[in-house]
Amino acid sequence: MRNIDVTNYLADKKALVDAALRRSFGKNNPLFDIMYYSVDSGKRIRPILSIASYEANGGEDVESIMDVACGLELIHTYSLIHDDLPAMDDDDLRRGKPSLHKKYGEAVAILAGDGLFAYAFELMSRGEDRAHEKLAVVRAVSEAVGPAGVVYGQLLDIGRMERSPKTLRDIHLNKTARFIAVAVKAGAIMARAAQPKVERLYEAGLCLGMLFQYTDDILDIVGEKHALGKTPGKDEVSGKITAPAVYGLDGALFRARRYADLARQRFGALGADFDVFCQITDFVLRRTY
Amino acid sequence: MRNIDVTNYLADKKALVDAALRRSFGKNNPLFDIMYYSVDSGKRIRPILSIASYEANGGEDVESIMDVACGLELIHTYSLIHDDLPAMDDDDLRRGKPSLHKKYGEAVAILAGDGLFAYAFELMSRGEDRAHEKLAVVRAVSEAVGPAGVVYGQLLDIGRMERSPKTLRDIHLNKTARFIAVAVKAGAIMARAAQPKVERLYEAGLCLGMLFQYTDDILDIVGEKHALGKTPGKDEVSGKITAPAVYGLDGALFRARRYADLARQRFGALGADFDVFCQITDFVLRRTY
Repeated sequence: MRNIDVTNYLADKKALVDAALRRSFGKNNPLFDIMYYSVDSGKRIRPILSIASYEANGGEDVESIMDVACGLELIHTYSLIHDDLPAMDDDDLRRGKPSLHKKYGEAVAILAGDGLFAYAFELMSRGEDRAHEKLAVVRAVSEAVGPAGVVYGQLLDIGRMERSPKTLRDIHLNKTARFIAVAVKAGAIMARAAQPKVERLYEAGLCLGMLFQYTDDILDIVGEKHALGKTPGKDEVSGKITAPAVYGLDGALFRARRYADLARQRFGALGADFDVFCQITDFVLRRTY
Repeated sequence: MRNIDVTNYLADKKALVDAALRRSFGKNNPLFDIMYYSVDSGKRIRPILSIASYEANGGEDVESIMDVACGLELIHTYSLIHDDLPAMDDDDLRRGKPSLHKKYGEAVAILAGDGLFAYAFELMSRGEDRAHEKLAVVRAVSEAVGPAGVVYGQLLDIGRMERSPKTLRDIHLNKTARFIAVAVKAGAIMARAAQPKVERLYEAGLCLGMLFQYTDDILDIVGEKHALGKTPGKDEVSGKITAPAVYGLDGALFRARRYADLARQRFGALGADFDVFCQITDFVLRRTY
């Protein structure tokens, strides 16, 4: 793959995802409008990674990955809605506007999250073709975002755990890295990549996911409310176990760079088709500059 | 099918489901134990219906339906956990013991619900065989329990809606009937029943589901706390839109019997193999005596 302008690349893919998400809403009943309130913004990192992986693995019909891509974004959105609830992180601001429970109340926010979660699986299982691949995606995604993945990570995150490197790693790995990694894996599955390659991509995705959460933690300290679209400094006040809290800001930056090196190395080893992932890795790391 | 003792039949199937659920827990991390607290009781109506449908449609390897059956029960359990939350129905008692949020707190209850929902899809998509059938099950179930099904019904249920026959029907249909019906449908799909038969079973299942919710509403008035395992009379106090609230107790009983007639008629029309569903219908109706 030629050297690309990664900012343009991400913007193009985001536009594709935004359009597909719009098509998936705007029908049925009022609940869909409420859910779309939270869906209608976001960087679309997970769907973009699934599309990039699908294409890097030789997938030629981008439409055939879009339901999976949208499903990943809906799951991410549901997890943000539930994370923001008063009983959890109690966040008033998300993606630059009032969080869903501030807008519609707590009960509706719980249900909108539940609705998005279910609708994600409906989208991912849509259509009769590629049944084996779609079933494998449903299996991998439900595992990554479930009680041995994202939900477990969130449980650790809200728990009063000892502030240690091990706890930090468990939270980051489960809450973020597995989900990022399974997005990369899902694209490879849909492109019918060979099993060993799928697994190597998952491993590379884990490094990218760890990097992503490290830069998120760092941005919470150095970022501005405007750029973040959520309340910065919140982690510090609430005593969250973050990379800077465990390693200090310099230590967190050092480790972020190390995860970036590892991710580039693993993606790079898969050949020139995967250069785009090295550039996305650089892009994520640069967020902290 | 010979005339069966339906109480024994249900008890036998329930024992199968209980054992399969036990096998699916008791590993991984502490979250699984928390989730199992809520899973470890219940009548197992939905999984039993899926197994009965699988067998009535000629399915011979009951093991091949068990993951789907368990998945249905986990989704039902997740929906009860979220329904009981303080922001929703605020119920302290469920299945004869403290509801999950009373035991572990609200945040953990939200997460346990989310975890069960994800784990249900993990179970339903497990294994490489029957990929087309499993994908169809995932599609049908996610639709029935999502924002155009159970979640929408719950939204209507907590909303301040006009107390009318139409609202009652929308709530019952979405919150209960579609879920009961899709359990019957899932068993038929896994047994590779022909598409028209699958749809006819779904329609019959809707009648059974409406009957089920009618008897539930009636039991909330005439039942006892001990027998119910949840707080009776709660619907009345909270101003819920129930069948007796809309039609009076006698009107609700009359309509329950009519749904039972319709269900028996539709199941009966599918042949002697489906007699078991007529008997289950009678059993559900008898709950109100």
